Amino acid sequence: MRVLYLGDIVGRSGRALAVEKIPELRKSLRLDFVVVNGENAAAGFGITEKISDELFTAGVDVISTGNHIWDQKETKNHIAGEKRLIRPLNFPVGTPGRGSTIVQDARGRKMLVINVMGRIFMDPLDDPFAAVEAELNKYALGSTVQFILVDIHGEATSEKMAMGQFCDGRTSLVVGTHSHIPTADAQIFDGGTAYQTDAGMCGDYNSVIGMDKAEPLQRFTRKMSTGRFSPAVGPGTLCGVFVETDDKTGLAKRVEPLRLGARLHEHMPIA
Amino acid sequence: MRVLYLGDIVGRSGRALAVEKIPELRKSLRLDFVVVNGENAAAGFGITEKISDELFTAGVDVISTGNHIWDQKETKNHIAGEKRLIRPLNFPVGTPGRGSTIVQDARGRKMLVINVMGRIFMDPLDDPFAAVEAELNKYALGSTVQFILVDIHGEATSEKMAMGQFCDGRTSLVVGTHSHIPTADAQIFDGGTAYQTDAGMCGDYNSVIGMDKAEPLQRFTRKMSTGRFSPAVGPGTLCGVFVETDDKTGLAKRVEPLRLGARLHEHMPIA
Amino acid sequence: MRVLYLGDIVGRSGRALAVEKIPELRKSLRLDFVVVNGENAAAGFGITEKISDELFTAGVDVISTGNHIWDQKETKNHIAGEKRLIRPLNFPVGTPGRGSTIVQDARGRKMLVINVMGRIFMDPLDDPFAAVEAELNKYALGSTVQFILVDIHGEATSEKMAMGQFCDGRTSLVVGTHSHIPTADAQIFDGGTAYQTDAGMCGDYNSVIGMDKAEPLQRFTRKMSTGRFSPAVGPGTLCGVFVETDDKTGLAKRVEPLRLGARLHEHMPIA
Amino acid sequence: MRVLYLGDIVGRSGRALAVEKIPELRKSLRLDFVVVNGENAAAGFGITEKISDELFTAGVDVISTGNHIWDQKETKNHIAGEKRLIRPLNFPVGTPGRGSTIVQDARGRKMLVINVMGRIFMDPLDDPFAAVEAELNKYALGSTVQFILVDIHGEATSEKMAMGQFCDGRTSLVVGTHSHIPTADAQIFDGGTAYQTDAGMCGDYNSVIGMDKAEPLQRFTRKMSTGRFSPAVGPGTLCGVFVETDDKTGLAKRVEPLRLGARLHEHMPIA
Ligand SMILES: [Fe+2]
Ligand SMILES: [Fe+2]
Ligand SMILES: [Fe+2]
Ligand SMILES: [Fe+2]
Ligand SMILES: [Fe+2]
Ligand SMILES: [Fe+2]
Ligand SMILES: [Fe+2]
Ligand SMILES: [Fe+2]
Repeated sequence: MRVLYLGDIVGRSGRALAVEKIPELRKSLRLDFVVVNGENAAAGFGITEKISDELFTAGVDVISTGNHIWDQKETKNHIAGEKRLIRPLNFPVGTPGRGSTIVQDARGRKMLVINVMGRIFMDPLDDPFAAVEAELNKYALGSTVQFILVDIHGEATSEKMAMGQFCDGRTSLVVGTHSHIPTADAQIFDGGTAYQTDAGMCGDYNSVIGMDKAEPLQRFTRKMSTGRFSPAVGPGTLCGVFVETDDKTGLAKRVEPLRLGARLHEHMPIA
Repeated sequence: MRVLYLGDIVGRSGRALAVEKIPELRKSLRLDFVVVNGENAAAGFGITEKISDELFTAGVDVISTGNHIWDQKETKNHIAGEKRLIRPLNFPVGTPGRGSTIVQDARGRKMLVINVMGRIFMDPLDDPFAAVEAELNKYALGSTVQFILVDIHGEATSEKMAMGQFCDGRTSLVVGTHSHIPTADAQIFDGGTAYQTDAGMCGDYNSVIGMDKAEPLQRFTRKMSTGRFSPAVGPGTLCGVFVETDDKTGLAKRVEPLRLGARLHEHMPIA
Repeated sequence: MRVLYLGDIVGRSGRALAVEKIPELRKSLRLDFVVVNGENAAAGFGITEKISDELFTAGVDVISTGNHIWDQKETKNHIAGEKRLIRPLNFPVGTPGRGSTIVQDARGRKMLVINVMGRIFMDPLDDPFAAVEAELNKYALGSTVQFILVDIHGEATSEKMAMGQFCDGRTSLVVGTHSHIPTADAQIFDGGTAYQTDAGMCGDYNSVIGMDKAEPLQRFTRKMSTGRFSPAVGPGTLCGVFVETDDKTGLAKRVEPLRLGARLHEHMPIA
Repeated sequence: MRVLYLGDIVGRSGRALAVEKIPELRKSLRLDFVVVNGENAAAGFGITEKISDELFTAGVDVISTGNHIWDQKETKNHIAGEKRLIRPLNFPVGTPGRGSTIVQDARGRKMLVINVMGRIFMDPLDDPFAAVEAELNKYALGSTVQFILVDIHGEATSEKMAMGQFCDGRTSLVVGTHSHIPTADAQIFDGGTAYQTDAGMCGDYNSVIGMDKAEPLQRFTRKMSTGRFSPAVGPGTLCGVFVETDDKTGLAKRVEPLRLGARLHEHMPIA
């Protein structure tokens, strides 16, 4: 199976480029599924129904999120009825929405997407390792599902890499999000799980992690805010990870970063 | 000028490979200077005089560090007499050693290296932005010094990228360290400063950020320690950043990651 | 029922005074039960079997702990066989020991003690609110147990006070520990639960939260360590909370701090 | 000299009671100076000119603050012209307002008030110890000023107590704020400085640290917000510290907490 994961879409720059490029990428990379992180899609803060529909229409199969999931008031209702939009699994029991979802392609092949949040330097949720363990125990990779993707939304590289090792041999891909910077450590672990510490964001990299640089710089140097954060509006760059798996095992045969756009060294997986 | 920066050397795997490869890289990449981060060189914790001498002998010009600087008892004395080993600039006044240093090549060209520590999710030191500002005000890039390198040792991508933007046009390279994972966002900012959020580590990437994975995994899942962290001992990978600058301005003409070794997609700057 | 809770015993100063005074206090205050926090009893770091036995012999019924629970290697084994020594409830499933215990007096009255750890500014464990909820659902206050004591070991006053309000009407006492400073906010909440944000420590208050002040001061000002933390060895002060409840309801009729010793304004509950 | 310090005034409950009681307390306690922390006076978030004037009129000499200093937009301008309203000293150079101020009584006696912010579990500002050191070096206690008060606004008890020990013998009083819970550890350190880890808040203690308990409880248990924090509106309690010093030395002869109002065990210093 061929899957593309794109990291946190930040505001209009990232969104417009994602909507434009995803249809082309589905073809050129012969993608079976596309997953994106949408937690910053709505002007940097959360995601609206309108925006998620726009992304689904463009060819996104599942939208995962993170700590910004509830930034838009409408999301609590929206997520209840939209199975393709997921929030971190390790919110408390009773939280609206779901932390994982399954989508199926025309040939009946199934992809399970799990979204989970790290706790190091983040708001404390339930144990992400125990939560993922419980979820993985419900499925058999290569049998009941052909692809398992874990989006570990977290700050600390140690926690994300530990999650990758924890899932090794049991999932197709573990990819981190939240740092908004793509890492260059795509690899296949010993057990066959593809891993990259952070997918990076889809947005304007002439910024401070996607935000217009003036306000962050002023806060770092003056320790006072003078206004809100708003996404940088220059040309965007898409960042993500491409994985190709063996349907019989669900394990990775190939993992490569994708970087496409105005900034950063471009990298396009060989089709 | 042609400069290679290599990120945190973690234990024997990273050290052995660095010592082996640096002499070759100096030639093949026609390097004028080599800087490495040595804060984890001594079995993951700090650096000894013996190890720093080994690195200097291999062709390293300056060793920067970070939060692990004082892990080896001898360092307080050693650093006082070793100008090529620096510690974060923003330690309190009176701290042993120095936070920046200048080295000179055979042709009389000078490189200033500044090491500074971020404060987000880190132990609070003095303001890194004010500290760098004060340091930069002492020099004129392209005139009194030909190259200025800032190693921002920090956790948060936002703080590191803000430091990059803060120094844009005033330094040759701003490179982050501490996350132990290379980022794929090498770029030249509008003002001419090369930037990469994290250089990545030099060590075994079949690990949890360079450490043998058993203990970190056990701590993340059990929330108890059963032993010490020790570096993973598999084959190492070198990670860093290569920059080429214009000596007249000290600004970047080219920036590229370097990844060389057992794991990760290799990338060698074109000589 | 009349219960005394004493906060974190820090090293020899606190321990010696606790062992000396508890027998007297049991009589003078006509105490039915005594609970202490022992996480710093062994030279500031954890607790040994020898020390816990010494405390039990002096008249302690239950020892609760906190983040320092595993500082002494022997504790993993010791706690498995010692029902009166408890660790925070919200460690992962499978952690040695238990997070709550029940003790019974000669008249058959039962006290349930729950130890739980906060997560704000602390290592992330499982949700303390959900953990306490599950535990409380097993018992009926005033019926199956006559007294329920919750020791919320945490940093943030907000989280501790929220736990107090969360348990209001369902427990006899919610008392905080970990800050090592007694608070002066003993009160009975609207539902009948006695509350104090922190019991304070039992130790030498001519210190930095129980530790000899030289090393903490040096670390705060120099941002380097020069040695280990060791408990201050001056005369100790006991700090804790006294509660009197109605056995029929298990709710509080009276709550008062206890402060007894060399420093701080003394306060002895009226017998 | 006889000085009363009152901790963080939280919303209307605290403010109304402070304004009502301060005139009486000035008389009954024969106070020379009154200092309050006003960072939460305006509905929990910052302070307005109107509110600070109301407090000055009631008999407050100096208002110190903390991390909420800039919550009200007008404060940046207001503080520039109001010498009696101070903000933490260790904001960066160039921050509006001042971090210390001197007031004088009818007899010409001077009180220096320093406001400084801790960094442990707080936003990182400049080194509070170095900042206080520099400030103290400008004055001679018992000579150029008769009273020096340090308000250390911080989270960690260790940092606040270290500041107390750091200032011992050089200031009249070191008192902590920010936790919103009064501590019961008032003492005079060996060098003659009075100390209390936290003054506590002036507000409604039937709450979660002054805020209406519904929203904090919901956030702790659900990990989602449903609304804004707003101050609890029940009857308030004043909390603070009373100090009496020797004008010749500026050192403390007596320190006692003050607790006055609807909740908590009341304590009134003996006049
Ligand atoms: Fe994000
Ligand atoms: Fe995020
Ligand atoms: Fe490192
Ligand atoms: Fe580091
Ligand atoms: Fe403790
Ligand atoms: Fe503790
Ligand atoms: Fe406050
Ligand atoms: Fe505050």
